[in-house]
Amino acid sequence: MSLFAIGVDLGGTNLRISAVDSEGTLLEKITTGTQVSKGRDFVIGEMTDAIKTLNSKFSSQYELAGVGIGVPGIIDKRTGMLRESPNLPGWDNYPVLDEIEDRLHSPVILENDANAAAVGENWLGAGRGIQDMGMITLGTGVGGGLILDGSVVHGMSGMAGELGHITVEPEGHPCNCGNVGCVEQYASATAVVRMAKEAIDLGAGGEMERLAHNRDVEFSAKSIFNLALQGDPAAKLVFEKVGRALGIMMADIINAFNLHMYVIGGGVSNAWEAFAPRMFHEVRRRSMVYAATAPPTDRELHGASAKLSHDPPPRMLQTIITRAVLGSDAGLYGAARLPLMRNETA
Amino acid sequence: MSLFAIGVDLGGTNLRISAVDSEGTLLEKITTGTQVSKGRDFVIGEMTDAIKTLNSKFSSQYELAGVGIGVPGIIDKRTGMLRESPNLPGWDNYPVLDEIEDRLHSPVILENDANAAAVGENWLGAGRGIQDMGMITLGTGVGGGLILDGSVVHGMSGMAGELGHITVEPEGHPCNCGNVGCVEQYASATAVVRMAKEAIDLGAGGEMERLAHNRDVEFSAKSIFNLALQGDPAAKLVFEKVGRALGIMMADIINAFNLHMYVIGGGVSNAWEAFAPRMFHEVRRRSMVYAATAPPTDRELHGASAKLSHDPPPRMLQTIITRAVLGSDAGLYGAARLPLMRNETA
Repeated sequence: MSLFAIGVDLGGTNLRISAVDSEGTLLEKITTGTQVSKGRDFVIGEMTDAIKTLNSKFSSQYELAGVGIGVPGIIDKRTGMLRESPNLPGWDNYPVLDEIEDRLHSPVILENDANAAAVGENWLGAGRGIQDMGMITLGTGVGGGLILDGSVVHGMSGMAGELGHITVEPEGHPCNCGNVGCVEQYASATAVVRMAKEAIDLGAGGEMERLAHNRDVEFSAKSIFNLALQGDPAAKLVFEKVGRALGIMMADIINAFNLHMYVIGGGVSNAWEAFAPRMFHEVRRRSMVYAATAPPTDRELHGASAKLSHDPPPRMLQTIITRAVLGSDAGLYGAARLPLMRNETA
Repeated sequence: MSLFAIGVDLGGTNLRISAVDSEGTLLEKITTGTQVSKGRDFVIGEMTDAIKTLNSKFSSQYELAGVGIGVPGIIDKRTGMLRESPNLPGWDNYPVLDEIEDRLHSPVILENDANAAAVGENWLGAGRGIQDMGMITLGTGVGGGLILDGSVVHGMSGMAGELGHITVEPEGHPCNCGNVGCVEQYASATAVVRMAKEAIDLGAGGEMERLAHNRDVEFSAKSIFNLALQGDPAAKLVFEKVGRALGIMMADIINAFNLHMYVIGGGVSNAWEAFAPRMFHEVRRRSMVYAATAPPTDRELHGASAKLSHDPPPRMLQTIITRAVLGSDAGLYGAARLPLMRNETA
């Protein structure tokens, strides 16, 4: 009997549960809102109910390899507790893993959501077939994940890959983590909105000022990106700042890791056209490791997702920075992949 | 017959060749100046002559495991060529490895000097018994090395661990690498001297101004550190800048790697008392990973080298930042260790 796994993406807004077979085919997906206000017991109840539903539906055809859950926060790998999880208030220092295993009576793997996205892109996305890669997710915050030799790097206590909190502006904007000037403060969806408002406050908001007063359109990273696409200089400047911050951070990690591929995902990565040129400019200038291993300039921007799957494999000694291809499903596939991987190596 | 190895530290100023047994005992060391101006053939001739001398002296008692050479520069691990080596002018794109192997008729391992220092400290120094550690060398430049699972991390093309070129001041002082504001521009011996001169030029040099005009004492990182020790506020401020830059860089790498230990060596690390308090202040504030895993504040500064060897082992889930203990010999021992390691795993 072939294997399947259940992958969960537990976000601050959406809770998604999927059944995925060992080849990466999605068998079924359940999407619901994460009702954070009803408390963690309620949310875990919803999650475990959905897991049981999917398991009973597919367990006649497939054997369950296990359950993987991607969680936004720092996970203590020894204890299965969440250490910090700003988007799941009240979950800190809660024994999430024990609680879920008790209800399911089956083994569960808990993983940071950006690490799960890295596993997903590595399995079925931009990093397919790549042994060593970094993943950067640009969402409400900025997350990071590292894969070496095909496995997630956890470090001493499960906290490796916190790339969103690399300093890019030493006296910059305060971050929730206690630092100032983290890349998260310049390249997350939250940061895009804040930087747009700062421009408006300075009287330099351009079309964004009108957008901010338009009650029919949400003032979001997406709508600001649309203005940039339409050529609004003020909106374009916001994404220049995103590109600059990302470029500084990418240069740092390329100098430190010298990996073959870095995949940029999360909602803000949809604004690739608006921030990537500046990002590549900064990386080329700031990382001698990148400068020595970069693909030809005309391929940099377009050596992205869509092309990679058709082109011959990128040369193994080039540093490739590319967009994610699985969109918001990366973490869901990655979470399912975790128990399947453990099964393969066992 | 027990094994020995020959380790070479090929610096821009000194050329040192050692014979070391498999337990790490120094059998003999030859120190000579690196006569860079006589050209690379001459330098390689001096090196290979010394290697042959040591080999014939010890090969009756020991079996030679091989020769390891630490070189200041980026090494292309596939070809054995130096890619960039500012302190060995004229050696770029020179097939160093082939040239030495041809003359010695025995296998040689070439390694970046900071990586060799990391191996040395990991074998016999501050990182003894530690599987995963980072090394930062504060010398003429700032170098870095990473050890995971007991082995040097090379990355895709041998360039991993270029920690000296992490950006700490995005619009800061120009660096030879093409970037501006690299940590090397604030925490190397060269940077200490430059920052002292900048203070003098601004009329804020304090005692350093007198030092600069004293022809009996070299105006160096060491003599500036002595002024700081004597309490000169201007000299102390220079090392505050060193500490701040190192703190930003260390926070970045701790967030990215979450390793158990980071060892700081090289000549400028002798000024530990002058820069470490500020460095720890910055790291604690800028890295939530460090904040969550730091040793008690009163142990931070003094949990250094000398104490570690007498204290019980540090708790395995603390992040330890400490001074190197082998001084300028770290790279020499590390270079010798490389062929011994290869022998052990073979």
